[in-house]
Amino acid sequence: MELLKQRILKDGIVIGKDVLKVDSFLNHCIDVSLSLEMGKEFKRLFSNCTVNKILTVEASGIGLACSTAQFFNCNVVYAKKSATRNCTDDAYTSPCHSFTHGNDNILRVSKRYLGKGDKVLIVDDFLANGCAVNALTDIVKQAGAEVVGVAIAIEKGFQGGGDALRSQGIKVESLAIIDEMNEQGIRFRD
Amino acid sequence: MELLKQRILKDGIVIGKDVLKVDSFLNHCIDVSLSLEMGKEFKRLFSNCTVNKILTVEASGIGLACSTAQFFNCNVVYAKKSATRNCTDDAYTSPCHSFTHGNDNILRVSKRYLGKGDKVLIVDDFLANGCAVNALTDIVKQAGAEVVGVAIAIEKGFQGGGDALRSQGIKVESLAIIDEMNEQGIRFRD
Repeated sequence: MELLKQRILKDGIVIGKDVLKVDSFLNHCIDVSLSLEMGKEFKRLFSNCTVNKILTVEASGIGLACSTAQFFNCNVVYAKKSATRNCTDDAYTSPCHSFTHGNDNILRVSKRYLGKGDKVLIVDDFLANGCAVNALTDIVKQAGAEVVGVAIAIEKGFQGGGDALRSQGIKVESLAIIDEMNEQGIRFRD
Repeated sequence: MELLKQRILKDGIVIGKDVLKVDSFLNHCIDVSLSLEMGKEFKRLFSNCTVNKILTVEASGIGLACSTAQFFNCNVVYAKKSATRNCTDDAYTSPCHSFTHGNDNILRVSKRYLGKGDKVLIVDDFLANGCAVNALTDIVKQAGAEVVGVAIAIEKGFQGGGDALRSQGIKVESLAIIDEMNEQGIRFRD
């Protein structure tokens, strides 16, 4: 998606070879009009798919998930993060290592909000090594629901998570795939 | 807002005298069409105000803030929560005690995303004792910006946070104010 790529080139900040800060438009500060354009593009890319629920993870995925949900006319469920498996709710859980924060979390979704027959589009702002998406996919399977696809704003292609999902036959659509980056520049996949 | 009040009566779960669970439509699971109706209503309630930025706090405020921002044509900034004041960014911080989670957090907003001249609408899903809104208001003041108003989905009127803000001359609009609740019922303020 050219609009997103241009915005990354304009406002993204590359730190080292693997950190891209997009705080100024995608998380922390959210450009809602861009977020809606991304949601519309996801609807186009998944136009032949039946989706009745969008699943993301707190906190940075929520804005994009809500924008996307408008075009699919469906609800958003967001997985909560906690440091431990301790929880009072009856919930599906799956472990996840955060690349950004360098810590381990348990993702948790109440069993009330995901179940058999749900056709789930997973939405997130970033896809790197795929740990968050793998944990969400695991949760969807535990619920007996179906992952229709994975919709990502920015995929760090060089970390391999997206291609590993594709090789499992999962439909992954990322609006910008970065194959290489450093402080001198960013190379997008064609 | 009648639509929200009816939804609370239908799907809200009261625990004891002060906990209201609205996980099934406002947080964890977000009814995006309801969220957009609430955003539209905030636009009506603050129609005579100039707003160029919406400020909320992760994670449960983000969905409503993004829905609301569409009607104000502005960006959303969300404060991040952390357990300590340690942070590498140049940020405004303010302490906040979470009523829901029973813990203390530091709210943090990068100095890049809030500054002099900003006219800020604070949006959140809940207002109870007002600690989160007070911390956000403190951050806006530190930035030299102006709080135009406070837009809340559900105010627990009996906890006093909303009325304390109003007595300071802050325009607070809550779509549903609960003056009393228990497992037998909910009494809304007229």
